[in-house]
Amino acid sequence: MTSSFGTIFRVSTFGESHGGGVGVVIDGVPPRLAITVGELQADLDRRRPGQSRLVTQRDEADRAEILSGVFEGYTTGTPMAVLVRNKDHNSGAYDHLKGVYRPSHADFTYDAKYGFRNWAGGGRASARETIGRVAAAAVARKLLAEVAGIEVLAWVQSVADIEADVDSGALTLEAVEADPTRCPDPDAAARMTTAIEQARRDGDSLGGVVACVARRVPAGLGEPVFDKLDADLAGGLMSLPAAKGVEIGSGFAGTRMTGLAHNDPFEPGADGPRTTTNHSGGIQGGISNGEDIVCRVAFKPTGTIASEQQTVTREGEATTLAAKGRHDPCVLPRAVPMVEAMVLLSLADHWLRQRAVDVLPQLDVRP
Amino acid sequence: MTSSFGTIFRVSTFGESHGGGVGVVIDGVPPRLAITVGELQADLDRRRPGQSRLVTQRDEADRAEILSGVFEGYTTGTPMAVLVRNKDHNSGAYDHLKGVYRPSHADFTYDAKYGFRNWAGGGRASARETIGRVAAAAVARKLLAEVAGIEVLAWVQSVADIEADVDSGALTLEAVEADPTRCPDPDAAARMTTAIEQARRDGDSLGGVVACVARRVPAGLGEPVFDKLDADLAGGLMSLPAAKGVEIGSGFAGTRMTGLAHNDPFEPGADGPRTTTNHSGGIQGGISNGEDIVCRVAFKPTGTIASEQQTVTREGEATTLAAKGRHDPCVLPRAVPMVEAMVLLSLADHWLRQRAVDVLPQLDVRP
Amino acid sequence: MTSSFGTIFRVSTFGESHGGGVGVVIDGVPPRLAITVGELQADLDRRRPGQSRLVTQRDEADRAEILSGVFEGYTTGTPMAVLVRNKDHNSGAYDHLKGVYRPSHADFTYDAKYGFRNWAGGGRASARETIGRVAAAAVARKLLAEVAGIEVLAWVQSVADIEADVDSGALTLEAVEADPTRCPDPDAAARMTTAIEQARRDGDSLGGVVACVARRVPAGLGEPVFDKLDADLAGGLMSLPAAKGVEIGSGFAGTRMTGLAHNDPFEPGADGPRTTTNHSGGIQGGISNGEDIVCRVAFKPTGTIASEQQTVTREGEATTLAAKGRHDPCVLPRAVPMVEAMVLLSLADHWLRQRAVDVLPQLDVRP
Amino acid sequence: MTSSFGTIFRVSTFGESHGGGVGVVIDGVPPRLAITVGELQADLDRRRPGQSRLVTQRDEADRAEILSGVFEGYTTGTPMAVLVRNKDHNSGAYDHLKGVYRPSHADFTYDAKYGFRNWAGGGRASARETIGRVAAAAVARKLLAEVAGIEVLAWVQSVADIEADVDSGALTLEAVEADPTRCPDPDAAARMTTAIEQARRDGDSLGGVVACVARRVPAGLGEPVFDKLDADLAGGLMSLPAAKGVEIGSGFAGTRMTGLAHNDPFEPGADGPRTTTNHSGGIQGGISNGEDIVCRVAFKPTGTIASEQQTVTREGEATTLAAKGRHDPCVLPRAVPMVEAMVLLSLADHWLRQRAVDVLPQLDVRP
Repeated sequence: MTSSFGTIFRVSTFGESHGGGVGVVIDGVPPRLAITVGELQADLDRRRPGQSRLVTQRDEADRAEILSGVFEGYTTGTPMAVLVRNKDHNSGAYDHLKGVYRPSHADFTYDAKYGFRNWAGGGRASARETIGRVAAAAVARKLLAEVAGIEVLAWVQSVADIEADVDSGALTLEAVEADPTRCPDPDAAARMTTAIEQARRDGDSLGGVVACVARRVPAGLGEPVFDKLDADLAGGLMSLPAAKGVEIGSGFAGTRMTGLAHNDPFEPGADGPRTTTNHSGGIQGGISNGEDIVCRVAFKPTGTIASEQQTVTREGEATTLAAKGRHDPCVLPRAVPMVEAMVLLSLADHWLRQRAVDVLPQLDVRP
Repeated sequence: MTSSFGTIFRVSTFGESHGGGVGVVIDGVPPRLAITVGELQADLDRRRPGQSRLVTQRDEADRAEILSGVFEGYTTGTPMAVLVRNKDHNSGAYDHLKGVYRPSHADFTYDAKYGFRNWAGGGRASARETIGRVAAAAVARKLLAEVAGIEVLAWVQSVADIEADVDSGALTLEAVEADPTRCPDPDAAARMTTAIEQARRDGDSLGGVVACVARRVPAGLGEPVFDKLDADLAGGLMSLPAAKGVEIGSGFAGTRMTGLAHNDPFEPGADGPRTTTNHSGGIQGGISNGEDIVCRVAFKPTGTIASEQQTVTREGEATTLAAKGRHDPCVLPRAVPMVEAMVLLSLADHWLRQRAVDVLPQLDVRP
Repeated sequence: MTSSFGTIFRVSTFGESHGGGVGVVIDGVPPRLAITVGELQADLDRRRPGQSRLVTQRDEADRAEILSGVFEGYTTGTPMAVLVRNKDHNSGAYDHLKGVYRPSHADFTYDAKYGFRNWAGGGRASARETIGRVAAAAVARKLLAEVAGIEVLAWVQSVADIEADVDSGALTLEAVEADPTRCPDPDAAARMTTAIEQARRDGDSLGGVVACVARRVPAGLGEPVFDKLDADLAGGLMSLPAAKGVEIGSGFAGTRMTGLAHNDPFEPGADGPRTTTNHSGGIQGGISNGEDIVCRVAFKPTGTIASEQQTVTREGEATTLAAKGRHDPCVLPRAVPMVEAMVLLSLADHWLRQRAVDVLPQLDVRP
Repeated sequence: MTSSFGTIFRVSTFGESHGGGVGVVIDGVPPRLAITVGELQADLDRRRPGQSRLVTQRDEADRAEILSGVFEGYTTGTPMAVLVRNKDHNSGAYDHLKGVYRPSHADFTYDAKYGFRNWAGGGRASARETIGRVAAAAVARKLLAEVAGIEVLAWVQSVADIEADVDSGALTLEAVEADPTRCPDPDAAARMTTAIEQARRDGDSLGGVVACVARRVPAGLGEPVFDKLDADLAGGLMSLPAAKGVEIGSGFAGTRMTGLAHNDPFEPGADGPRTTTNHSGGIQGGISNGEDIVCRVAFKPTGTIASEQQTVTREGEATTLAAKGRHDPCVLPRAVPMVEAMVLLSLADHWLRQRAVDVLPQLDVRP
């Protein structure tokens, strides 16, 4: 249960940063979807480290293999399993972490939970776990495009106090991918780059906000009460490593508006009601209303830093620790495909769930 | 599935604002817990309208009845069912809403989803649905207090741009309940009261932020990956009516800190490592670390306002609408027990789940 | 979790034989289904005691109330809650059972599990719990008839060693309901009646087999591996009180055939392949093949008997016990609607699940 | 959902008979369990073909690899993933099955469900899928032995009409493994061997019954209503390939006994009540009572036979088909570890679930 997401389109990830590999089982993929391992790889390549000088310089090829669920180029309807092998690592690289808890990592909490220390490189808490999510989301992306023309696009909205100016309605994937920061505002991107490089030189790290838009989501997706579309998005997005906050539509800023300003007036549209503003972020009462779905995720500054920090040993003694090796001073660019992944997985699940809702004829005489 | 929350301590709510009643089935309550209907009623009374001039003046007695799962004053281990009857309503009171969609309500999205309009008072999207959550949470509260001394306390942190100054570590239930706003900062509470009353006179509404602290949560609660404690909190809290954002610990503000400032250093403590700061909000890697769990929820300004708004009819014609009757100009005070409810339900579930994790002896020689 | 069944069409029952009442929450009912409380009551009336001299003479009116999920005669798509009140009982009637375990009942095992004795009339293990299942199944019955013309019909196939001769293909509800035994073979029914009355006079009880057929189930329902249609049927049917065995198609008798005799040859049919025999019972590889689904459930003789039996007290002392009051000497007639209920619930769930499978266009060129 | 089993100890299998491999993700394994790949392999070796002349002569090495969840010889608490590679197969070996449905296989039903024909060797319906179950069950076996001394042992009880005489109480693994039939009654085993070899020569196949006993299961495992221990066993066992019936305790034979004969009288025991007979098969009211759990599974004769059979093509034309290559004339010996697997998985899940039930102190004064 702890590693599964979704009700119908249900993904279960497995694997640690060290060991045989990481991957995902995707249950509930509809049959007859044309899919290739290359389509998965394209999103995985956006996620992996080493893409630019801004992110970790480790070379992780992250080659995906589809173990099951695809036959002659089409999904069979049975579970897709995808495996990405870990590379062999120098087993001594993590020796200095065996008996000490890195501040603001999961080292101590995993030990408290499991009474066991998997000290090699973050274990299950490593961001490598998200490989499975991104691979599964590539399948969701293909499905949603095919059945409904849905498109999901995320970008870096801010790094530290540098805020981008982005028109989410006009944004393209090309604009996002144009800069290694994945910030489509060139001016902000340049300042982000400078800030991230300075943070690296300082042995420090930066956080920021990833924003995401989903377009052409039909009205009616999401379930009342606990499985609201925004609730599933919030749960999924907060489950990403380093996430500390989630907003839908107006978010926290909306709390400072009045109802009259915040309410989204309806006007007649070609295919039903449209709203003239979108403070709701495309979701009302937990259900999509046909407008763009807009959300934002706050990522804290990376916990792993080269500066010396105060901590304790497994035996309870005070000590200090400084990270060795190469580390991301800012995870934001790599978080972009992860945010897209959780939005895609949520939407695929809710789109399929709605299929089991809309089964009876429309009523001639509505009450 | 759509109306259930939790894995072991699992609640399923039912009911609409009109009809026979609303309620909850609570599966997974451990046996031998002493509980009375009065303990449920106490929390329900904090949730219901009509407590002060700040909130809706409707008189809803909301008397709970425990239908099953309790025998001779103790839980039996089988599902508890709790029912709160709806009062008979004037069936004509909602006639003017039959064919029109209220802006920023669930009227249109429910219709898009279900092809059916339950126009009587919000139906399943009504805040009355949260009665079941609050009743179930009263059971969770009793359980968590008994097994672990856990205490969960929420308060109104802001209304519009009025921000309270609250020391979450020293806060008491009495301080929260001292003012109808449920804001424990008397000065801010007074200004909030003024602002809310002004909004009512203006036919407008206000939003705000509810904050919540959970104390004495043992380290080790929460599951890696999708069922992280913060992910379950975020999903649960975002499922509350009118919620648009959730933060854990430093939240969005934390994105503007550097890693060196944001990391929570460890120091030796009497019962294991403690952190000297709590930007993590008590959760690291999705698992509690023994510090106070701190979260915040953004609630948009209430959608129902007396001012006239632009909207469309079910037939797609432009029209205008103004709310009739009495309505909350600000839901924040009533949202306090709802926020506590979702935190309590998440914690009860994760506390019980950890029971099935920690089953084997500690290893003598740890790797 | 312990009290829920189904993935999409998901029922959660609650209630004990004593206390406020028993009922069910049905989540996942598609909207726009016309349903009345009378349709639920019709099936509940077939389940309740007191219908003839063959079954318990207690008068339990079992009046159902729909608390939610239906508006103006149609389902809304939100959870249906159904409540059946318990009657007030003489609280002293069960005093003699307070400290003693009835043989082959759940008294001891519930106490071992919960450390708590709900001694009033069977508690959650009472057959009254099945009221919720039967009420939910009435909704499933209506849905399946409307969307696919599916019909589910069960009957008493044997009592003790009296075996009925029934042509399942030609059987009608009228034939089943024609005799209080619910055995549609008049000769066997007469002998069953005699045997049951003799058992009552002997202070003894009888068991038997209920058979069930589901007609017009489309090919393709059921999921591979764990959620096979036959696996879900077996799990659901074995969850009925007093069930000790389940067979699909040829069942145990099929183990004595050879493959050549047992295999069901295909022949061309108007709407696709048909089988010339049906040893598979309409299910192959866990998925329906369009033939009649046929299953059988073994019910042990009722545990409650008037004869004196050896047992132990809660304190571990040997003692004897003889049932007081009126009891079913044979549950088979009342088990018929319960068996139908589990088959209906399984089919409704799988029919809706298949909606989320069959979403992409057929392939022009199949591999 | 379709490929997962269990609530806390939750296994998800993946893979087809052809493609990259088959395997399982096991979520909910408690940390600190010592486990080696050799312990998984031991059970896998009992499952695989080619062990004797009685079963398929294909040489499938079925080497398991643990991809995650184990570190330095102990489980970490995070998901275990196990992979068994498929061997490369002659792609032409199944060409003759491309356009035709094998009788009493899943060929037609999968096509009806998915609109897609994975014609290579059974696909997901292949018995190779059970590799994942057996690997996961080896972990469950180790856990149950360690925490409760539970032992699960299955054997071939009958083949066709040859019935073994077995004392389940005294049975040992050695006695089961002593003969390739896995029938511990040497005389019956010899006759079974003769019958199976004759069936092979006849181009025919045989079915039979596998029985299973679970010893030292503590009283109190299993949940009321739908998640009864016997219901979960029945669902799990019926999900095995070729299963057509399941019995617990007295099963169908019990329906011919009277209540007085069938009830299991209690007598005082050293550790609580014991029953003097075990018609209940160790389960009463869905919950274990501390006696041996006894169940039986009916397996139909293998569908794949060398004799010519009547069938239809994918285009709906009548044709005939005879299996090529080597096939099991009787799956019973290989079904033994599969039956054990489902019993082990059910028991591990329920043992862990009970941990979250028994959390509060015993009541001093019981009602």
